[in-house]
Amino acid sequence: AIVAAIAAKLSDGPLKGRRIVLTSGPTHEPIDPVRYIANRSSGAQGTALARALRDLGAEVVFITGPASVAPPEGVEVVAIETAQEMADAVSAALPADAGVFAAAVADWRVTSASDRKLKKSKDGLPVMEFVENPDILKTVSHLKEGRPGLVVGFAAETNDVVDNATAKRLRKGCDWIVANDVSPATGIMGGSENAVILISDAGAENWPRMDKGAVARRLADRIAEALTDRG
Amino acid sequence: AIVAAIAAKLSDGPLKGRRIVLTSGPTHEPIDPVRYIANRSSGAQGTALARALRDLGAEVVFITGPASVAPPEGVEVVAIETAQEMADAVSAALPADAGVFAAAVADWRVTSASDRKLKKSKDGLPVMEFVENPDILKTVSHLKEGRPGLVVGFAAETNDVVDNATAKRLRKGCDWIVANDVSPATGIMGGSENAVILISDAGAENWPRMDKGAVARRLADRIAEALTDRG
Repeated sequence: AIVAAIAAKLSDGPLKGRRIVLTSGPTHEPIDPVRYIANRSSGAQGTALARALRDLGAEVVFITGPASVAPPEGVEVVAIETAQEMADAVSAALPADAGVFAAAVADWRVTSASDRKLKKSKDGLPVMEFVENPDILKTVSHLKEGRPGLVVGFAAETNDVVDNATAKRLRKGCDWIVANDVSPATGIMGGSENAVILISDAGAENWPRMDKGAVARRLADRIAEALTDRG
Repeated sequence: AIVAAIAAKLSDGPLKGRRIVLTSGPTHEPIDPVRYIANRSSGAQGTALARALRDLGAEVVFITGPASVAPPEGVEVVAIETAQEMADAVSAALPADAGVFAAAVADWRVTSASDRKLKKSKDGLPVMEFVENPDILKTVSHLKEGRPGLVVGFAAETNDVVDNATAKRLRKGCDWIVANDVSPATGIMGGSENAVILISDAGAENWPRMDKGAVARRLADRIAEALTDRG
């Protein structure tokens, strides 16, 4: 559902006149009316990026799962819960100059989601069947018509970050992958800082660990440069 | 972990000198470092009850999962994440005059919880094996030594509320069940109001729908009466 649609007071920055679709936050996949599968994304990095893109003058469509931080003002907020709802919202928001997919989308959902609260079964254990969710990043990257000029994915890895993220970039067909290490020891998932590796066709570029707001501003600057270069 | 241990300024009410162990909120059961199974409990009813019991003078040990409302002041807060951690915290907090188990505890956890982020397997679907979590209410109700004089469970039902809750009271061996209908249409799970049925050996007592604070105060009064009657 569209919670707010505000696109006032756009600033006069390098992204003026550019429409950017940005996903953020976790998705929740229902198991039954009371239980769901979630992930530890706070939405902090995506929200900071929305703010940074807005500050450069972009028209931002901010498609967000149930995040623990409030969305910024001056962007069009589309609040969703599940991966399927996020995919539908992205489709509806295109075309755009750039698509930036920072959300931690559930890869799977429970096919057997019940409209009644699951009771313990005879052997005491639930039966859960899964089906793959739509792959938003891959779908948008491979659009024949209306593919955004720049498609950016995120990769939250816990090991072999550069290798996994480089493989992900090729597999998905996106232009950039913003990769980070979300091992619990790093404190990044749900924390205030981020240490990012930007993967592009030029290779892997290590950014120093910094505040998520600083990561967002640097990434927004790079997006502005790329869109300017491409016209 | 114990986040705060504050038991100052206990009031002079009918629960003065009584120690009450109270669980509240959801539990989160990890699937891997970034994913977990959760439930829609906000912790609002349990938090309101902690406040009401404190206001009647009780020493409250408030064992809470990751709730979306802040714990009250003047209670001993023990913050946990999983059902197993909650069970351990309850054990450590006993003996007590009453045990009130308002948390929405996950019935199961994922045995195969991974310390690395799960990747899509060859067929694209995860393999999740479950094991039953400890049954805190049943365990405490059946304690041979140190059973609290009053054991209260909660039952969140989506259908056949009285039948399910009455059966739950007998199955668990507790004294009371505070039952409610959490069907999405009621707006109770995560909302500000509650409509409760109190199940005891005297039968089922329907309370009118009211603010969760009012439910908490009425239940705290009943707990105070019961503890006074039993000496």
